[in-house]
Amino acid sequence: MNSDLRIGVIGYGYWGPNIVRNFMRHSDCTVTMICDAGSEALDRARRMYPGVTLVKEPNEVLDSPDVDAVAVVTPVATHYELARRALENGKHVFVEKPFTANSDEAKRLVELAEAKGRLIMVDHTFLFTGAVRKIKQLIEQDSLGKLLYYDSTRVNLGLFQHDVNVVWDLAPHDLSILDHLVPGTPEALVATGTTHFSGYEDVAYITVYYPDSMIAHFNVNWLSPVKIRMTLVGGEKRMLVWNDLEPDEKIKLYDKGVDVQSRGDVYNLLISYRSGDMVAPRVEPVEALQLETRYFLDCIRENKKPRNGGEAGLRIVRMLEAAEESLKHRGKLVEL
Amino acid sequence: MNSDLRIGVIGYGYWGPNIVRNFMRHSDCTVTMICDAGSEALDRARRMYPGVTLVKEPNEVLDSPDVDAVAVVTPVATHYELARRALENGKHVFVEKPFTANSDEAKRLVELAEAKGRLIMVDHTFLFTGAVRKIKQLIEQDSLGKLLYYDSTRVNLGLFQHDVNVVWDLAPHDLSILDHLVPGTPEALVATGTTHFSGYEDVAYITVYYPDSMIAHFNVNWLSPVKIRMTLVGGEKRMLVWNDLEPDEKIKLYDKGVDVQSRGDVYNLLISYRSGDMVAPRVEPVEALQLETRYFLDCIRENKKPRNGGEAGLRIVRMLEAAEESLKHRGKLVEL
Amino acid sequence: MNSDLRIGVIGYGYWGPNIVRNFMRHSDCTVTMICDAGSEALDRARRMYPGVTLVKEPNEVLDSPDVDAVAVVTPVATHYELARRALENGKHVFVEKPFTANSDEAKRLVELAEAKGRLIMVDHTFLFTGAVRKIKQLIEQDSLGKLLYYDSTRVNLGLFQHDVNVVWDLAPHDLSILDHLVPGTPEALVATGTTHFSGYEDVAYITVYYPDSMIAHFNVNWLSPVKIRMTLVGGEKRMLVWNDLEPDEKIKLYDKGVDVQSRGDVYNLLISYRSGDMVAPRVEPVEALQLETRYFLDCIRENKKPRNGGEAGLRIVRMLEAAEESLKHRGKLVEL
Amino acid sequence: MNSDLRIGVIGYGYWGPNIVRNFMRHSDCTVTMICDAGSEALDRARRMYPGVTLVKEPNEVLDSPDVDAVAVVTPVATHYELARRALENGKHVFVEKPFTANSDEAKRLVELAEAKGRLIMVDHTFLFTGAVRKIKQLIEQDSLGKLLYYDSTRVNLGLFQHDVNVVWDLAPHDLSILDHLVPGTPEALVATGTTHFSGYEDVAYITVYYPDSMIAHFNVNWLSPVKIRMTLVGGEKRMLVWNDLEPDEKIKLYDKGVDVQSRGDVYNLLISYRSGDMVAPRVEPVEALQLETRYFLDCIRENKKPRNGGEAGLRIVRMLEAAEESLKHRGKLVEL
Repeated sequence: MNSDLRIGVIGYGYWGPNIVRNFMRHSDCTVTMICDAGSEALDRARRMYPGVTLVKEPNEVLDSPDVDAVAVVTPVATHYELARRALENGKHVFVEKPFTANSDEAKRLVELAEAKGRLIMVDHTFLFTGAVRKIKQLIEQDSLGKLLYYDSTRVNLGLFQHDVNVVWDLAPHDLSILDHLVPGTPEALVATGTTHFSGYEDVAYITVYYPDSMIAHFNVNWLSPVKIRMTLVGGEKRMLVWNDLEPDEKIKLYDKGVDVQSRGDVYNLLISYRSGDMVAPRVEPVEALQLETRYFLDCIRENKKPRNGGEAGLRIVRMLEAAEESLKHRGKLVEL
Repeated sequence: MNSDLRIGVIGYGYWGPNIVRNFMRHSDCTVTMICDAGSEALDRARRMYPGVTLVKEPNEVLDSPDVDAVAVVTPVATHYELARRALENGKHVFVEKPFTANSDEAKRLVELAEAKGRLIMVDHTFLFTGAVRKIKQLIEQDSLGKLLYYDSTRVNLGLFQHDVNVVWDLAPHDLSILDHLVPGTPEALVATGTTHFSGYEDVAYITVYYPDSMIAHFNVNWLSPVKIRMTLVGGEKRMLVWNDLEPDEKIKLYDKGVDVQSRGDVYNLLISYRSGDMVAPRVEPVEALQLETRYFLDCIRENKKPRNGGEAGLRIVRMLEAAEESLKHRGKLVEL
Repeated sequence: MNSDLRIGVIGYGYWGPNIVRNFMRHSDCTVTMICDAGSEALDRARRMYPGVTLVKEPNEVLDSPDVDAVAVVTPVATHYELARRALENGKHVFVEKPFTANSDEAKRLVELAEAKGRLIMVDHTFLFTGAVRKIKQLIEQDSLGKLLYYDSTRVNLGLFQHDVNVVWDLAPHDLSILDHLVPGTPEALVATGTTHFSGYEDVAYITVYYPDSMIAHFNVNWLSPVKIRMTLVGGEKRMLVWNDLEPDEKIKLYDKGVDVQSRGDVYNLLISYRSGDMVAPRVEPVEALQLETRYFLDCIRENKKPRNGGEAGLRIVRMLEAAEESLKHRGKLVEL
Repeated sequence: MNSDLRIGVIGYGYWGPNIVRNFMRHSDCTVTMICDAGSEALDRARRMYPGVTLVKEPNEVLDSPDVDAVAVVTPVATHYELARRALENGKHVFVEKPFTANSDEAKRLVELAEAKGRLIMVDHTFLFTGAVRKIKQLIEQDSLGKLLYYDSTRVNLGLFQHDVNVVWDLAPHDLSILDHLVPGTPEALVATGTTHFSGYEDVAYITVYYPDSMIAHFNVNWLSPVKIRMTLVGGEKRMLVWNDLEPDEKIKLYDKGVDVQSRGDVYNLLISYRSGDMVAPRVEPVEALQLETRYFLDCIRENKKPRNGGEAGLRIVRMLEAAEESLKHRGKLVEL
């Protein structure tokens, strides 16, 4: 008797093959169906996975009795409808980021999953990288102390999307990492940016305000001649730099900081600087998607709430929506 | 008979010695007086320059018949009063950045200099560095094509100022460079940021809007564990990265860009990327302040309007003021 | 009718799968047989290439009428015997580097290939990378002028080989690149190094002397905490740095050099330095092995002498042999 | 009564001013005389130090009753004669590196200083840098374990010397650091290199053999388009990289290494790799020459043997001599 979880994957373009390959590597699940509207994509799938059923119509996956969970790896505009029908049919859902095209859709999916007792997980892959896991651990161990700011830059040339702006394209990565790493609830957001070529913003900046002086900032840009993936996190005790393009020393933890001694009033602060060793902790070289798909299977089997479930997806979509509104009004403050 | 221009320098703390040393190196001027309220500073000056008259009272410089031009190298709060009295006394003025504490003061100094027929120059030193001169040349030669964005990061640990925030401390450099390099007039500005220790903002972000989709952004931060001095400039033809911490290859010019071909309407854009060679043009290793003090002397002798005169100083102070106002209201759009 | 060239691959360990995959991508050849002594390797091959005949005995490939060319992807000790029998049976041969375990074997294979009218090519993959192709082009265009020195560093932690020292493991890459790029014939060689763990040298340095003051030097090391892949090439006109770990700017060409003006005799040289722009020419992002396998097929079809044929392999093996002898006698000069 | 040590400095070209400035900063010594044959140099000295006696003839310093110690900051060919006469006249001596032009001279100076009861110290400035002091401390704490190799690269464009080759110019730095850091006595040496322009070698490589498998290697080159100052030190426990051009993280200590387990015989070694965190220990930002001149004064006052005394100078000169001999005979092994 076979108790493998049976996965149906809808969308076999750029990211779909990674989803299939990673689910395939787990011994307690099987990808039983792959769906893509394009013949070329299905041909590629056929060569790699001769045993899998290949279809062109999503309904065939959504209605299939041979599918326990559906991975939705399609453009964001289609996420809501596909995920909704999967949940209605009693299937668990793994959906690409960004979760949905707006927060209404996200909210409804969260409620539907709850009502149907099914899992919905958003593919916030970065949470499962060795680097983010290490930073999470450092924050949880209080290595950084109270957080002061989070400053991220994700820029490169190209990969213009035809249906979304640079915020919806690049910021979901960073906002989901922020949501995962930084305790507390952001209260408002300001976004600025501009449009040059496609009618969609290709350069944008987002500031996220937290209560109590913590701030986060995101620089996303499709028009940079160089690729930068760099995040600074300042804490009261220590500060770190995460350079995701470094092959070996992705995270550098600095024993640096500011010491303030008050002498009675604000006009008599003594501010001094600490500067000690730097440590680049070893980062596990794991494939994030393998850990994440494993986590998806475990959450289903153990009926656990995932940290990157629909609620997390909803929080990110709310920030994306707010950023878009702020962008349109040149930096208008939008409450979250 | 001696036709040397005679300079009086007020302020001999951190930056003043550089001003004195650089004026001293020109054969057609002499520093005749140095003023500082501190005995320790005057002792240092005495050892280095035994022949110069040393005084504790600015008035002695401002009223001296042995001074043709006054360099004001004091905290910003005092700039207006010192510069005003120097001009009233018929002296030329070289004043530290930021020009003044607000735009009203700046405007009055510009008018007074005009009325008195005297030169007032603001020490925007960076304009005279090899790097900025090379970038200016590239832009004037149209190597970059129409500019798309200007994105600057200037962060490091420390050097908290006790009287101004990080915007007034660090952004004058970048705003004066922007003002110098980018054609056109910025129309509005958004600034966000936060305060942790001193009551003054120590992390801030500024977006400057230009008409016609050009945008500029500034990241200034006193709480970064690492020092970064990096500017990206995107143009339609080429893009450049200026890393001021690189000893040799400060500027990298990328033959990269976006090509857009319309096929009838906006829904049918063909967007492609160009990616060619990178060139790091040789940057002259000059001392900026030597060129700038030379330029000050030349403008006086030849009765020229300097590019970093009071008007430029006023434009920068206006942006600083606007940034401060926007900061206070969490990213409120402020027209320029 | 099918005129595909039929390839048999012997050895399906670390590198063999790359060889198979690359031959498979050419439309005018087929991999008909794969041989490996290990069941696990054959299982992997079966999953990837269900249609290929899999065998455990090399003889089955060497004697097969369904094989036109044999790729020998086995440890170096076995190269000679396998290549010899392939040639005897009238097959073309593609053999891993280093070509053979000694120069006697190499010489015999070259002669045998000649006698049999068959092609023998050594897998000097690096010659087909975008970086080496670009450097070759720069040298052929005389961009560098007369070459002065070639200085290569290839160090990292690990990958100890159980049957050869670090010279036989790492230097074949660099020596084959040297052989390809630098005109002229090296005349002698000095090698130094030491052994710590395995009985085989794990740190070694090789100096290769050319007539007329050109020199080459190689630093190979299995015990470095960091990975370095850096080559400097000095020329009279220009100099270049090739950093193979850079993702984008692998080659930097410096307009730098030395100008010497004689004033009558050697005691009155005026030596000055030129320092101009740096250019990082675009390097084609190609898969070297695809170009090389294509070249192998073309040389067979067009009956061409390849530049990385047996003669080149022999030259490299001679240098490796000389280095080993020099190493044993602590830097003894060995004529080539 | 004044018990200041009185210093006479011979040579006020490129390095002399640093020597004078650093001695001047100590409160218990005075530079009383400066000697240089050039009028321009003496003019510079006069402006900086109006109170110092300036002379053109070294004898005036060497014979002066107002001089307790002589700093010899002249070309190497003159070191022996000047130091000898200073010692004969009962003065302590601080002499530039390289100590002398050959080991005979060095030996005689060591003996003479001994006989006269006077201190002779060689200016191996690098030993007093924060980086070398930190590495020394790490080695003494056994952080690295048994040393396996020391590999240094010191290359850049230019600064051709008119009287010595690149080995005598650049290697004294590295050899004195090696001598300071690495326990044990080197037993032999091999040097290779070549000459292009000046008749002196401008590219050279030195291998130094120690008993028991430790090896050191030096790459010195005046013809490199880029400046590199990088040293790798491999130890059984840990390994380090010292990049002297890094402004902040000059030393990186890697918890990396090789673990070998024998299974009975050499053919059955199990070799595995350890790879843990990297630490960049804080390096004190000191001016090395200030520490060194302080140390010179202390050694005189306390009658201490300095670690960079004549004996150390002699050991370095022996290696330079050996390298020169080996160079001439293309890598001939020279015993030390």
